[in-house]
Amino acid sequence: MAAVTFYSKDGNKMCEMKYQSIPHDKVDLTGGFWAGRQELNAHTTLWAVRERFAETGRFDAFRFDWREGMPNKPYLYWVGDVEKWMEAAAYVLKREKDPRLEEIIDRLAERIERQQGESGYYHVTFSALAPAERWTNRNAHELYAAGHLMEAGVAYYEATGKDRLLRCACRFADEIERVFVKDGEAAFVTPGHEEIELALVKLYRCTGEKRYLELSRFFIDQRGNNQKDRPVQEWWNSRYEQAHAPVREQDTAEGHAVRAVYLYSGMADLAFEYGDSALKEACRRLFRSIAQRRMYVTGGIGSCARDEGFTIDYDLPNLTAYSETCAGIGLMLFASRMLQLEADSLYADVAERVLYNAFLSSTSLDGTAFFYENPLELDPRLVHREVFAKEPTRMPSTRRMKVFSTSCCPPNITRFVASVSGMLYTIRQDAEVLYVHHFMDSRAQVEVGGQRMTVVQSTAYPQEGTVTLSVENPLVKRMAVRIPGWCQEWMVEYGGQTLSLTPEKGYVYFDCPREGEPVTIRFSMKPQLMEAHPAVRDAGGRVALQRGPLVYCLEGVDNGENLRDIQLDLSSPITEEFDPQLGAFVLGASGWRKDPEGYQGLYRPAGLPRIRQDLRFIPYYAFANREECEMIVWVNI
Amino acid sequence: MAAVTFYSKDGNKMCEMKYQSIPHDKVDLTGGFWAGRQELNAHTTLWAVRERFAETGRFDAFRFDWREGMPNKPYLYWVGDVEKWMEAAAYVLKREKDPRLEEIIDRLAERIERQQGESGYYHVTFSALAPAERWTNRNAHELYAAGHLMEAGVAYYEATGKDRLLRCACRFADEIERVFVKDGEAAFVTPGHEEIELALVKLYRCTGEKRYLELSRFFIDQRGNNQKDRPVQEWWNSRYEQAHAPVREQDTAEGHAVRAVYLYSGMADLAFEYGDSALKEACRRLFRSIAQRRMYVTGGIGSCARDEGFTIDYDLPNLTAYSETCAGIGLMLFASRMLQLEADSLYADVAERVLYNAFLSSTSLDGTAFFYENPLELDPRLVHREVFAKEPTRMPSTRRMKVFSTSCCPPNITRFVASVSGMLYTIRQDAEVLYVHHFMDSRAQVEVGGQRMTVVQSTAYPQEGTVTLSVENPLVKRMAVRIPGWCQEWMVEYGGQTLSLTPEKGYVYFDCPREGEPVTIRFSMKPQLMEAHPAVRDAGGRVALQRGPLVYCLEGVDNGENLRDIQLDLSSPITEEFDPQLGAFVLGASGWRKDPEGYQGLYRPAGLPRIRQDLRFIPYYAFANREECEMIVWVNI
Repeated sequence: MAAVTFYSKDGNKMCEMKYQSIPHDKVDLTGGFWAGRQELNAHTTLWAVRERFAETGRFDAFRFDWREGMPNKPYLYWVGDVEKWMEAAAYVLKREKDPRLEEIIDRLAERIERQQGESGYYHVTFSALAPAERWTNRNAHELYAAGHLMEAGVAYYEATGKDRLLRCACRFADEIERVFVKDGEAAFVTPGHEEIELALVKLYRCTGEKRYLELSRFFIDQRGNNQKDRPVQEWWNSRYEQAHAPVREQDTAEGHAVRAVYLYSGMADLAFEYGDSALKEACRRLFRSIAQRRMYVTGGIGSCARDEGFTIDYDLPNLTAYSETCAGIGLMLFASRMLQLEADSLYADVAERVLYNAFLSSTSLDGTAFFYENPLELDPRLVHREVFAKEPTRMPSTRRMKVFSTSCCPPNITRFVASVSGMLYTIRQDAEVLYVHHFMDSRAQVEVGGQRMTVVQSTAYPQEGTVTLSVENPLVKRMAVRIPGWCQEWMVEYGGQTLSLTPEKGYVYFDCPREGEPVTIRFSMKPQLMEAHPAVRDAGGRVALQRGPLVYCLEGVDNGENLRDIQLDLSSPITEEFDPQLGAFVLGASGWRKDPEGYQGLYRPAGLPRIRQDLRFIPYYAFANREECEMIVWVNI
Repeated sequence: MAAVTFYSKDGNKMCEMKYQSIPHDKVDLTGGFWAGRQELNAHTTLWAVRERFAETGRFDAFRFDWREGMPNKPYLYWVGDVEKWMEAAAYVLKREKDPRLEEIIDRLAERIERQQGESGYYHVTFSALAPAERWTNRNAHELYAAGHLMEAGVAYYEATGKDRLLRCACRFADEIERVFVKDGEAAFVTPGHEEIELALVKLYRCTGEKRYLELSRFFIDQRGNNQKDRPVQEWWNSRYEQAHAPVREQDTAEGHAVRAVYLYSGMADLAFEYGDSALKEACRRLFRSIAQRRMYVTGGIGSCARDEGFTIDYDLPNLTAYSETCAGIGLMLFASRMLQLEADSLYADVAERVLYNAFLSSTSLDGTAFFYENPLELDPRLVHREVFAKEPTRMPSTRRMKVFSTSCCPPNITRFVASVSGMLYTIRQDAEVLYVHHFMDSRAQVEVGGQRMTVVQSTAYPQEGTVTLSVENPLVKRMAVRIPGWCQEWMVEYGGQTLSLTPEKGYVYFDCPREGEPVTIRFSMKPQLMEAHPAVRDAGGRVALQRGPLVYCLEGVDNGENLRDIQLDLSSPITEEFDPQLGAFVLGASGWRKDPEGYQGLYRPAGLPRIRQDLRFIPYYAFANREECEMIVWVNI
């Protein structure tokens, strides 16, 4: 897949400039923060997930031999869980040979091929246990699982050249086209959980089969636009699955957050492929609905656990933040696709906010345990709030877990880390400008008109703010580098000079450096106090500490109990100290807290002298890696 | 019922000093705040509740003629709702003749007597509709309703001398004694919802029948102390109904808050009657568990809507505070009973906190609409938070309502206001000291040894802090006046002199003033900023404004939107202005808020200049009497 071969050149509304991502397998992470994460991901996380999935019967489910009375009855979501794991393994295989991984996937692919039979339909629960229920339940995730089979098939083919899994995916796609478009046999028209839309675009790009692109457009066009689809959950109206209006008319991000951002990603793909400006405009509005009104400072989205979804503007409670890991991943997928439609740093700023905070927080520092939810405040005492309830009101988990009953997040994390370098670059359609969206120590191969240019980033980002960009065999005229939204002071140096540059939509543009003459970008990493829009209730009178892209938090293990009582002294200097254990800077500040000795009861006149307190902030992503304790992001001032 | 005739003189552990309440019908409210409230209560609220209850079929239910297909099927709780209303009407009748009220009650009493039949059992749903289900369901509120019949019967007898309702109550009590003590026929031993315990003590005090007192002790002793009782709600363990341990061993206030404080009130009554020091000690611990760790600054209790109950220490969320009106009433009942066991201002301080805040807030200023829940923050936008849910997560109501399906609170409010003056005084068992717990413009008749002393309070409390106490025919040696916990500066003047007094357990003691020589007490009503124990999460970095016993709040209608963003300027003077519409002082202060113009998106570096904002605080009890808007009690500093 060459980098600047634009996919659809059928002449449809191709007037707007577009941008091509440089795929992750062309961008090697060579050191620093992300190479370490990828290493941990490939050799620890991927295998930890594999083991938990094996233990829980998720791999055995592909044998189709479960019978009543046996343990580990195959569950609806398991097929998607394993398919996402296969996709992750394929990305790892792109970088390093591992016959164990190939053997696992080859065996699964053989099983899938054999069990698919004539029709091409495949699902570990429906095929084996309930064939009569196929395509009857819009919320049964059959099309969602089909999408993950397509993504896995494409990834494994691109990694190994083996096409058995890809052919299974194509057969299934063909069957879906027959059932949904040609014969209209299913009890519904569009999936209850989006995913297949973006997957079909991948399948099209890999195979060149335009039918798959059109099938994706069918699902996008039909959503909220037909009489046959019913709300997927009895308790919710169709906003839950983003079917409350035709997608091109939607203005606000609604409903289940993962479904939403997967849908919007597919919409952005189709806007790209078809040059569909109405879809693009809808994507722009929906992205802004999230980024400007419905997103935590950590980049997390979905502020309501009950439906795992969006609520209303500025409603961002900390303690009960859902902020599902998969929703954060989906938001990054959406943002990266938007950067193929327009060069606006809003998208990469949001992706970076998620990446270093709500996404990184999902995984333990040892790479083996995961958060499904990523709240902005924890108080372990509250877990016991309903002391007498047999089924207490759900509170976010205070500890990461090895596996979940619905274990969508862990394999999603591992496939995302394995392919994270695909976020770094886009190149303008006319090959004039190469965009640098993110900063990771890396070496990229960019193909332009059959020739190859190499772009090298040397950086200790996000710990340090210096990025050196070197180009071998320059083939573009200009480069554009994102000046992160959080960054107040920066400079770009070239040939011993500081360039005088003004950002346009968040990017500084300069002539592509000559070979052997690197450009150096310096971002000030001075810690900053951030505040929220006045309508964000739970950030009122409070600030969050940020250094570079990292949002910080206070943990009880460092700062004692009753963190919500702490007031930060705005006049105290913020100190930085590198913590080798965390591999990150910890920040020191000073504040006050009430003296508990002064309170025999609950309430008293204000004015008691407060106790000085040294505060120790750690990166949000590192919380809950020591003993169970309180945590807060937003601190009183 | 003479005031200083002590009830049980059987010699059991009578060593400890006790205190006798001066009953409400001996204390006339002669003017000021509470006379106005009682007037509104007698002539508006009582009748508004009557009309809503009549419209909804609650009175018709006593006809026993409902048949399937008719509207207004009699509901479990209705009998208690109406019995509480009868008790309220009886208290009104103690002050003023009203043949309409007597006719309503007389007719109900006739019906009850006729329908009771031989057994004495009475319940509008079970008697008429499901006789076979009697005494099978511990949570069916049969004993609760029986308790309210007893309270109504006693009240109506004491008001009018008519004993038909009282005799119905006695017959029912006799039947309950047979079923529960003699024959053990019921499927349970103790009620799922306490109330009968304190009611039986009233019935004993009125009739002199010691069997009723012993039946009350049976229920108290058996609670948490037998194998037959099962948890009343499938989802909760027996803490919900305070049956997790024998009552004398309980240390913390647990479970459903109304049930809890009704139980504790009954326990305090029995501690008084039997001189039971283990019960008294349990009451002391349980009261402190509430007052020092589980009570809102408004005096509201029950911080969890799901079970209407207590949770854990210091867990007092504002937005989802349940703070049920009936729980506040029950806490005042408990506090007043504790003042019969020991002279400690903790009890009256708590009762006053509830009275002027979480209790008063329950009723609209026009006396016709009611809050079931009394939250400490409202944001009407959050009602629409789950925009797509058919059954959104319950949020407290933003408006008072005329009637509820379970309408325990409105008649509880009206009976409490009608008898509020019973909180004012206790007299020590040896008639040495008269205690003044609360301050209301009033005239009290206190009988001591067959003679009568008159105590007159002249005061505009809670608006003004001056209380003049005059005594006619003094019969006690000393008086004791509570110095409220909120009060930082006060003085007591007598005969042109300021007395030099030091409070003991919150009371100042001085010689009983001579006739014609009043004592004047002056409490400084200077507004104060209050703060909470550092473990109260939702009060961290925030203060509440209080003037005298009144807690204040900000409302959106006065202060614009996004109240959680407002920061109070601690150095700004707090101004006071009497608002004739509210009949109370409103307070002015100055603060800041963020300029929304500065926030295109959600987050930005802190430090933008803030806008100065004049703040207008109104008494908490008056919130939600104008347009629907935000409200907060705890304000950022």
